Amino acid sequence: MSRNVYLRTLPISDALELVMSRLDRDALLSAERIPTHEALGRITAEPIYAKASSPTYHSAAMDGIAVRAEQTFAAREGRSLELVRDRDYLPVNTGEPLPEEFDAVIMIEHVQELDQNTAAIEAPAFPWQHVRRIGEDIVATELLLPQNHRLSPYDIGALLSGGIFEVPVRTRPHIIFIPTGDEVLDFTRRPEPKPGEVIESNSQVLAAMARLWDVRFTRMDPVPDDAEALRRAVEQGLAQKPQALVIGAGSSAGSRDYTRQTMERFGEVLVHGIDAMPGKPSLIGLAGETLLFGAPGYPVSSVVCFEQLLEPLLAWMQRMEPKRRPRVSVELTRKVPSKLGQEEFLRVSIGKVGSKYVATPLPRGAGLITSLTRAQGVVRIPAHSEGKNTGSSVPAELLVSEPELGRILVCVGSHDNTLDLLANELMGLKRPLTLSSTHVGSMGGLLALQNDSAHLAGAHLYDPVSRDYNFPFLEKHLPGRQIRVVNLAIRQQGLIVARGNPKSIEGLRDLVREDVRFINRQRGAGTRILLDDELERNGIDPQQIAGYEQEEYTHMAIAVNVQSGVVDCGMGIYAAAQALGLDFVPLARERYDLLIPEEQAREEAMQTLLNLLRSDAFKEKIAALGGYEVGLTGEVMSPGTGLG
Amino acid sequence: MSRNVYLRTLPISDALELVMSRLDRDALLSAERIPTHEALGRITAEPIYAKASSPTYHSAAMDGIAVRAEQTFAAREGRSLELVRDRDYLPVNTGEPLPEEFDAVIMIEHVQELDQNTAAIEAPAFPWQHVRRIGEDIVATELLLPQNHRLSPYDIGALLSGGIFEVPVRTRPHIIFIPTGDEVLDFTRRPEPKPGEVIESNSQVLAAMARLWDVRFTRMDPVPDDAEALRRAVEQGLAQKPQALVIGAGSSAGSRDYTRQTMERFGEVLVHGIDAMPGKPSLIGLAGETLLFGAPGYPVSSVVCFEQLLEPLLAWMQRMEPKRRPRVSVELTRKVPSKLGQEEFLRVSIGKVGSKYVATPLPRGAGLITSLTRAQGVVRIPAHSEGKNTGSSVPAELLVSEPELGRILVCVGSHDNTLDLLANELMGLKRPLTLSSTHVGSMGGLLALQNDSAHLAGAHLYDPVSRDYNFPFLEKHLPGRQIRVVNLAIRQQGLIVARGNPKSIEGLRDLVREDVRFINRQRGAGTRILLDDELERNGIDPQQIAGYEQEEYTHMAIAVNVQSGVVDCGMGIYAAAQALGLDFVPLARERYDLLIPEEQAREEAMQTLLNLLRSDAFKEKIAALGGYEVGLTGEVMSPGTGLG
Repeated sequence: MSRNVYLRTLPISDALELVMSRLDRDALLSAERIPTHEALGRITAEPIYAKASSPTYHSAAMDGIAVRAEQTFAAREGRSLELVRDRDYLPVNTGEPLPEEFDAVIMIEHVQELDQNTAAIEAPAFPWQHVRRIGEDIVATELLLPQNHRLSPYDIGALLSGGIFEVPVRTRPHIIFIPTGDEVLDFTRRPEPKPGEVIESNSQVLAAMARLWDVRFTRMDPVPDDAEALRRAVEQGLAQKPQALVIGAGSSAGSRDYTRQTMERFGEVLVHGIDAMPGKPSLIGLAGETLLFGAPGYPVSSVVCFEQLLEPLLAWMQRMEPKRRPRVSVELTRKVPSKLGQEEFLRVSIGKVGSKYVATPLPRGAGLITSLTRAQGVVRIPAHSEGKNTGSSVPAELLVSEPELGRILVCVGSHDNTLDLLANELMGLKRPLTLSSTHVGSMGGLLALQNDSAHLAGAHLYDPVSRDYNFPFLEKHLPGRQIRVVNLAIRQQGLIVARGNPKSIEGLRDLVREDVRFINRQRGAGTRILLDDELERNGIDPQQIAGYEQEEYTHMAIAVNVQSGVVDCGMGIYAAAQALGLDFVPLARERYDLLIPEEQAREEAMQTLLNLLRSDAFKEKIAALGGYEVGLTGEVMSPGTGLG
Repeated sequence: MSRNVYLRTLPISDALELVMSRLDRDALLSAERIPTHEALGRITAEPIYAKASSPTYHSAAMDGIAVRAEQTFAAREGRSLELVRDRDYLPVNTGEPLPEEFDAVIMIEHVQELDQNTAAIEAPAFPWQHVRRIGEDIVATELLLPQNHRLSPYDIGALLSGGIFEVPVRTRPHIIFIPTGDEVLDFTRRPEPKPGEVIESNSQVLAAMARLWDVRFTRMDPVPDDAEALRRAVEQGLAQKPQALVIGAGSSAGSRDYTRQTMERFGEVLVHGIDAMPGKPSLIGLAGETLLFGAPGYPVSSVVCFEQLLEPLLAWMQRMEPKRRPRVSVELTRKVPSKLGQEEFLRVSIGKVGSKYVATPLPRGAGLITSLTRAQGVVRIPAHSEGKNTGSSVPAELLVSEPELGRILVCVGSHDNTLDLLANELMGLKRPLTLSSTHVGSMGGLLALQNDSAHLAGAHLYDPVSRDYNFPFLEKHLPGRQIRVVNLAIRQQGLIVARGNPKSIEGLRDLVREDVRFINRQRGAGTRILLDDELERNGIDPQQIAGYEQEEYTHMAIAVNVQSGVVDCGMGIYAAAQALGLDFVPLARERYDLLIPEEQAREEAMQTLLNLLRSDAFKEKIAALGGYEVGLTGEVMSPGTGLG
């Protein structure tokens, strides 16, 4: 059983400094001359001096008449001075050259045309008045831009105006990426992955970043877990003399071993492992003047490797300040324990609730690319911290612009497929709204409302005593709070079973069968509460159910466990079974509501959402999912309504 | 004399709303399917649901052994449990599929290998421990992204992982730009402009912005000031069905008349003139579903038109929040009067002096593209304001990142060519520094130090009584302040005359000749003070000098006036004459110093600058300019030193 050993992991900043100390920056990027109009974003390799002056002539800065200032000094209000065309003045339009011997322009608004050849003025002109002077913008030979300056659109304009049609710039860094791993499928073949296979996508995340960073990117064909094949690929890559060659680990540890071994074959490993989570198993090495990277296989780990190691080094190479994301202070909605000695990159969903930004931590797994696509920000938990408590104020680096945060509705609570539908519809509005849902179960939603950390919560909490939904729980957990309860839909809960129901599962009693493997929802989920209630009513001991202790967080996760054959059944909604083509054993109808604090319900964005809920078009779309009734959808519920 | 009349100018926001109210956004951009890995930055045209789950299988999330959790429950610290390979456990590496029938992984660090076939554990595993579960990231059929979502690098990764190899996205907006004007030179021909000619560059400023906005851009060939030629060009442009067609006015008003007339021929003019400065003469119209723009000819006006009108409309079309620049609060170093009823876009140079950001207004002319390239920010002075006083705190939109502001040295005062040299050298340092120089004359520099609005000032103030430089002025204007005076160079001042000195100007006495046209430096400039002193000493009456009232702000501006033949001579430094190949009549040597408040002199960045000044390499570069002596360069001056 061989395994990777991290000799000594380093904090990110130490790793970067170590690498920079080993490189001669001046030798890394050569210079080239390229057409100015194609040079946006490039870095000047030399100071650039103007060749032409701009403007090249004195010109009128206003529409009016050109005059000799000294001939106008006698003009006074009420004592106008008459000027004769050609002799004393000439008409002139903005931008036209100032006629020779004239040195000022009087705006047309201040000129009285007496006839074709006579003009009267009531105020003197001072010399150079309204004249755009030669060289006013640029004087030939003056410094237009210093060396090591990144060219903006304005710079392109100034260079062309100064007669510079070619600029000496540093070559753009070039990154080569080699995907590796036996299990890796080449996305260019549009594969349909079978169990055990992974569609290779990290290369394209980096390719897209390279576009944003404005550097060259080349992806080589994927290489299997084979030392010799990897050696050949690296050799081919290095022959192109890139500034960075990145070996993308497959997800197996074996391939990562080859990465290190191969890096050592061509050069030297400088960093093996960083004190970061995700991102720890990153490797940095050096082969000649090419940086070598071993990027972890998990998507979020590889993003950390790209953004925290590769990007700063590329920026440094180009003498650019690395891009910094905008930051806001956020309040964490949940306690986040973190490992001492490792900086953690926590993805969070952010929204503005009342006057504060609240950040709900997303699932922390390094394998979850969706934890990045669903995030609006990243909270860095420092290495010296053991975590953050609920309600802590921490800085978040934003993945969206700050104004966009104001257009996000934070929904925390139970999961339902109609929330996806709702999210999509809200993005189709004239002024789109983002619905950011975090699935922590119905009770988690109530807790979020209690802490003012969500705009709304989705819940379907059934109280067997009152036979009512949600209200009994609100009374208990949010006494005195004005919460508007609006129905989203009535939905069918039941057992999700494999297609054709091969184990002939007919109801809850089948769950205790020896040959039936079950999977449960997490504690606090409405579905779990519903199940426990049904089990109790039927006198079934949960301990007899194989898999009762195994928990998933969403209906879809339950369904995919059934679909893959890992379990035989789980409890969930009809829509989840239908989405994956599974069979369904109905057990109960239940009401799924949105719980909205009154102060939130009055906000414009929430009004928009509520209007959408009441629209027939939206109800039809819910109904089309199957397993939903929309008779109450969009209506305000009151206690005791039950299923209506 | 025909001229443009603005029927009714509009505030920018009103203009945008008017245009948006006339467009059907849904019809503007069609949809297309493109490969996912090429879709960065594009906007989804439909919701996107996953086709594949990810991962497709349960896999080990750690290196270790796969076990059945229920078989491990008896393990305790100090009471280890032995497991038999194949029967009770199997070794497993991160990412490898979890062997069938196993449901948990124990990290290798917590396993004691007794022999090849026996492992001992001291703690139980809970079900799913360290298992990356099927569908944990993505479940097939779930919503990956809603409609109208802009694709990030992370999204590309999620889409590929979810088996989406093609995405439906909105087409990118397409901008066509037609440069116009008889005086306009096509930059692609690399022209050398003669007086009266202008190198067309606005198209390339827009082209570069289009790259940043990620929209398509096409430039058509320049069109002369000819109504029929413009009509044909617009017709050709519209045939491509762009989302926006921009007619770039030449700098003559005539061509702008054609713009409006041509727009009306193909469609309707919605906005003629905005309440903005620069940018007022912008036109917006509509021809079918194509936006028509008449962009002003002055470079800064056209930038305002592009950024304030075109960009927000393109963003709106794509349902994107328009990009917002980072803002900081700055203190204005000078009073800025502004016209009521017009929003002004004031370009400012920003630096951090002490704990505050200070903003020095740059020249305000709409024709000065360098007022943008030299700016670090833009201050918007609202239409309802008549301007801002010195010391006002105002928000500035940053053109650089905030960390870059910390790397700027603000130099205010007299102009000298060696400052350009210094600026370039500072950008070549390991950690580059930006030297931002504003030229307001030596007295203006002293004033800036008085107000703590600069890190250093350049001055060459001569006091005829003490025959000393700068110190007498510091004593008078900054009494009690600790100012370190460091020499930059001793330089030659004199009369800059045309090549070959055709008017045989030999000295100051020639300035009163009838045939000699002079141009002066502005009041407060050290050169002006020197001239006035020399005139007085020689008993010459300034009123007798033709052109004494005409002022320029820099040595180079004086030189270019001489070079173009507008004047016969002006006072300035040798380096300026030499740069433009002019002749020079020496009058005096003078000391040019950098005045640095002691608290600034102790800062790291200033230390870097001072070290650079003392280096031989830098002194050699100054000397190579000609007209400079470097015997005192980099040395700290004390009162009474004079010329050393």
